Amino acid sequence: MLIVGEKINSSRLQARQILAGRDKEGLLHLAREQVAAGAAKLDVNAGALMDAEPEALKWAVETIQGVMDISLVLDSPNPAALAAALPAHRGQAMINSITLEPGRFKGIVPLVKEYGCQIVALCLDGRQIPATAAERMEIAEELVAKLQEEGIDKDNIYLDPLVHTVGTSEKAGVEFLATLRLIKERLPGIKTICGLSNISFGLPARRLVNRTFLVLAVAGGLDAAVLDPLDRELMAALTATELLLGRDRYCQRFLRQYKEGKLAN
Amino acid sequence: MLIVGEKINSSRLQARQILAGRDKEGLLHLAREQVAAGAAKLDVNAGALMDAEPEALKWAVETIQGVMDISLVLDSPNPAALAAALPAHRGQAMINSITLEPGRFKGIVPLVKEYGCQIVALCLDGRQIPATAAERMEIAEELVAKLQEEGIDKDNIYLDPLVHTVGTSEKAGVEFLATLRLIKERLPGIKTICGLSNISFGLPARRLVNRTFLVLAVAGGLDAAVLDPLDRELMAALTATELLLGRDRYCQRFLRQYKEGKLAN
Repeated sequence: MLIVGEKINSSRLQARQILAGRDKEGLLHLAREQVAAGAAKLDVNAGALMDAEPEALKWAVETIQGVMDISLVLDSPNPAALAAALPAHRGQAMINSITLEPGRFKGIVPLVKEYGCQIVALCLDGRQIPATAAERMEIAEELVAKLQEEGIDKDNIYLDPLVHTVGTSEKAGVEFLATLRLIKERLPGIKTICGLSNISFGLPARRLVNRTFLVLAVAGGLDAAVLDPLDRELMAALTATELLLGRDRYCQRFLRQYKEGKLAN
Repeated sequence: MLIVGEKINSSRLQARQILAGRDKEGLLHLAREQVAAGAAKLDVNAGALMDAEPEALKWAVETIQGVMDISLVLDSPNPAALAAALPAHRGQAMINSITLEPGRFKGIVPLVKEYGCQIVALCLDGRQIPATAAERMEIAEELVAKLQEEGIDKDNIYLDPLVHTVGTSEKAGVEFLATLRLIKERLPGIKTICGLSNISFGLPARRLVNRTFLVLAVAGGLDAAVLDPLDRELMAALTATELLLGRDRYCQRFLRQYKEGKLAN
């Protein structure tokens, strides 16, 4: 399970201030605490800075990778911001995200190819938001076909089935899980990713809903998640899930994390 | 999801003392707190009292049902204890449990028929303990066929796929979930039940493992569980799971439990 830390996101006030003010120590603190908590990649989003996004994204890449050996997820639909940041990135970057919307697809694909990126592909085509698993699969299959036509290796494609809140649609969780199942069946070898927290938007006890959703999604075959690795109960639920799914030989990871005090009982 | 409260079990010291001492108030307290926490049935086990089991089981049934309107799960492999308690039980009792072991099967089936009970059928045949899902399914199919030959309605059969600890077998969770899936596929209409806590036997942070396992099992189609309804995080995980699986219209149960302070975030 690939964990992408979500906290360097300019939609959050703290991160926005850090990015806008070029607060190097603040940025490195956000990066270090997420890596220490188990993130294997870090999402970086500077979109709220508007015209200043390209420079801020580039600065964040240089600042983090100047000190830490971690690859980043450049979270932007803006080709200009990606084009500014990608040359600064060491190793394979991931771009979050592309869709079937024609402008977005054409703007981002050349960058994915030029820099050999991993790419998050969202099941959206710019028309109405697909509610059912069948509608999402139609978009998913077209997206994967088009990306492969462009020569992008399927190992580099992460499909995001779209997470909507169960607060307004009681089938949101079910349709997500059904989409996940269909992707595994019909697009073997294509990996899956999602942001977690949308599932609980507008509800109370969001962390409870988020971590329960993570358990269900991992059991359904999710390969990667953009989440808050500082949420200890969330990370503990993930560790227990991988134990129960037979992915933790001799309970080694579980017992080590228990000894480190990471597992709330 | 049918919740069976597990706490009136003579393998636990407190319950053993209550049952042995005919402590009426103690027994009713154990019963009431479990029902208040969400149990729809209560498991009653007096097996540790040995020769005194039949009288104690009968007393427990009379005492609880004398005051409360709840049906009970008579947890005993001992036909004498069941024969003592069943005439005292109002409404449909559940017996926990039968297996393919010849003596046990023959001793219990007549009681199931005479009293029209629900029956928990454990995937065991008295030979070696079946490790794989395929081995368990073989027993499950034979059990169901034999129970139906005896005229027992399939609506009254709850198969228990067997829960072993992941502490000694890293595939224990996976084989359980696979068995659940096979039961749903090959024995449509037969319900499933399990005891939860065996999954974490010998491990630390047992409640974390138990509640994560419950989420996975419910997603896999589990119909009923014998569990500790006083474990608030466990019950909160169940509520969130049912919300995410589209079984909580307009989030009504989730929001009500949140207002009642039952959902830890």
